[in-house]
Amino acid sequence: MDYAQRLARLRERMGQADVDVVYLPRGANLFYLTGVRRPLEHGTDHNAYGDWASGAYIARDGGVVLLAPRMGGAFYEAEAMDKPWIARVRLIQETESPLAVVQQTLRECAARLGHVAIDDRAWGQATLALQEVAPEAVFSSASALIAPLRMIKDDEEMAAMRRASELADLVFARTVPILRPGVSEFEVAREVDYQFRLAGAEYTSFETGISFVGPAGDAGRGTTRASQARRLSPGDSVTFDFGCVLGGYCSDFGRSAFVGEPPAEYRRIHELVLAAQRAALEAMRAERITASEANAVARRAIADAGYDDNFTHRLGHGIGVTVHEPPFLDAVDQTVLQDRMVFTVEPSVRVPGRFGNRVEDVVVVTPAGGEPLNRAAHDLVVVA
Amino acid sequence: MDYAQRLARLRERMGQADVDVVYLPRGANLFYLTGVRRPLEHGTDHNAYGDWASGAYIARDGGVVLLAPRMGGAFYEAEAMDKPWIARVRLIQETESPLAVVQQTLRECAARLGHVAIDDRAWGQATLALQEVAPEAVFSSASALIAPLRMIKDDEEMAAMRRASELADLVFARTVPILRPGVSEFEVAREVDYQFRLAGAEYTSFETGISFVGPAGDAGRGTTRASQARRLSPGDSVTFDFGCVLGGYCSDFGRSAFVGEPPAEYRRIHELVLAAQRAALEAMRAERITASEANAVARRAIADAGYDDNFTHRLGHGIGVTVHEPPFLDAVDQTVLQDRMVFTVEPSVRVPGRFGNRVEDVVVVTPAGGEPLNRAAHDLVVVA
Repeated sequence: MDYAQRLARLRERMGQADVDVVYLPRGANLFYLTGVRRPLEHGTDHNAYGDWASGAYIARDGGVVLLAPRMGGAFYEAEAMDKPWIARVRLIQETESPLAVVQQTLRECAARLGHVAIDDRAWGQATLALQEVAPEAVFSSASALIAPLRMIKDDEEMAAMRRASELADLVFARTVPILRPGVSEFEVAREVDYQFRLAGAEYTSFETGISFVGPAGDAGRGTTRASQARRLSPGDSVTFDFGCVLGGYCSDFGRSAFVGEPPAEYRRIHELVLAAQRAALEAMRAERITASEANAVARRAIADAGYDDNFTHRLGHGIGVTVHEPPFLDAVDQTVLQDRMVFTVEPSVRVPGRFGNRVEDVVVVTPAGGEPLNRAAHDLVVVA
Repeated sequence: MDYAQRLARLRERMGQADVDVVYLPRGANLFYLTGVRRPLEHGTDHNAYGDWASGAYIARDGGVVLLAPRMGGAFYEAEAMDKPWIARVRLIQETESPLAVVQQTLRECAARLGHVAIDDRAWGQATLALQEVAPEAVFSSASALIAPLRMIKDDEEMAAMRRASELADLVFARTVPILRPGVSEFEVAREVDYQFRLAGAEYTSFETGISFVGPAGDAGRGTTRASQARRLSPGDSVTFDFGCVLGGYCSDFGRSAFVGEPPAEYRRIHELVLAAQRAALEAMRAERITASEANAVARRAIADAGYDDNFTHRLGHGIGVTVHEPPFLDAVDQTVLQDRMVFTVEPSVRVPGRFGNRVEDVVVVTPAGGEPLNRAAHDLVVVA
């Protein structure tokens, strides 16, 4: 990936917006701009000494300075090794004040601090601290500066996303054979996660969601986990929702299955969901439609068949170095779709206690419409 | 847990500090104060419409208002159902401006907005937005208001932490049998995670870390994952580092193993690590020692034996609703240990390419010293 060019484009935008310094904590924007990978966030909060101050401080001129806690800092030193656009890694020692280190770093970045832009996901603690050491500065969103760059994928990004989607296809093929009455949602999810690791994925792009819906009930809402102890029974429908991170880029994938002979209504729902996806793909031509219009096309197909209330989410979302990123195929996003924007297209129909069906592909916008990166067949999987 | 009392104590502190509103995004502080559970954070960023504005807005008088995106909002509605201290859940619709909803919510919280306190981990985006709608307000850290409450565990919390630690003991006993030459670090980690789910844990409190160190090399630093594809060989030492969340409270656990007959130096290192832990526990008497002094006691034991450079981290950390929380048993924390504070005590010695050894228990401070909540034996596990 051409990180030097991405940083040059950010600096150009910093110049236009008169931003003196950009602050990015570890995360998607930092990875996108510098290649510094994101450790997996997991479970509950970690707190290393100086953690809140860590991340990249990017001046309009000069290199990127990376602050990191001493404890765990070796990871960032290793990341910076082959990246000449990172001027230096500065570890925060337990013997010094993180606030003083931030102050010193900002001073080295810019003689004047009139405008600081911060990542939307910077910590509140970091935000207040930056305001303390740059009391004259205006603060704005660095994410808003970076989002337009991230929306349009270049050839290398497209290749990375294709590989991540191929891995999702492969893992689906390898996981389907474990579907049998008695297996639990979370055992299937565990198999998906294991197959991703075996196949070389860095981690999953979000928590793997396996859902069984049928006369035997559904695990339902109100839980903190996406896959439950609910066991598969004859007459159940199964939905898959999973993805991985590979080379820093995400996939996001969905298919459906049924245990036993699917009732006629379920077969109709499956065809309806596929038809809604096809209609959206045909409509998603570059420069010809907005994100919200694409959403409306799929929703209309499902509503016309009487299942409007059973399609409870947006049609999809931008995807790249994070699984959900602008633009969004929802009711409000007025962004005109452009060549090389990449989205999930994921219509679904869920009738609680009876059926669940979804299909999801990662799709690139072209002048001729949406082209899926996934190759896995869309056919309903029937478990004998 | 007595959430109403916790909120009353927060409001008392808000009064002392003249804070009008506290804003907490979903996370540890929100769970601690209201019982609203945290969905597992996982992989890459999710972004629902209005996500940045979600969380609790707590006025000095009146109930807690919970904002949530419509998409996924059913989770928060279900969480609030049995919690009368939550005045209402307000879903942010795609048809409205999240900023306007925040403005309206703040106005309902307080006639005057002179002082707003925010969670250290509130998003930067939320912080800047709150400043926009409350331009006259001073902003400070809500986490600093809440941390002293969280440090001292009551009887119910102690019982919850004991259960979470018992689960770690159990999962260790169930995982040890899969240690055999050829198994990979991540296969062992996968078994730990699976056993936690089977035993009823909500999720792991952090990413499970299994590390093999020996003449065959070690997976080493610079990776984004805590357990690697490295396979177990004769002559390897094994360290376990894992924990779970159960009833919202964390465990964190460590033990060591060796494949084949351990060399004399490794046996000495194992005894040294245990001795360092024992010395710390003896010293950790309530009102008699600071956090940094407790750290120094264990470090001195290891340094005196010549392994100072091989103990690369702090002795431990507070633990409760997150796995790492104040106070910290490190070189700088001057907090005097008090009855019912709970810490990990986790000395380790790692000699790269040769040996790794660690022991970790969750320990409650009492007037008589540190009492471990874990019951698993400290003996070195020898894999035949």
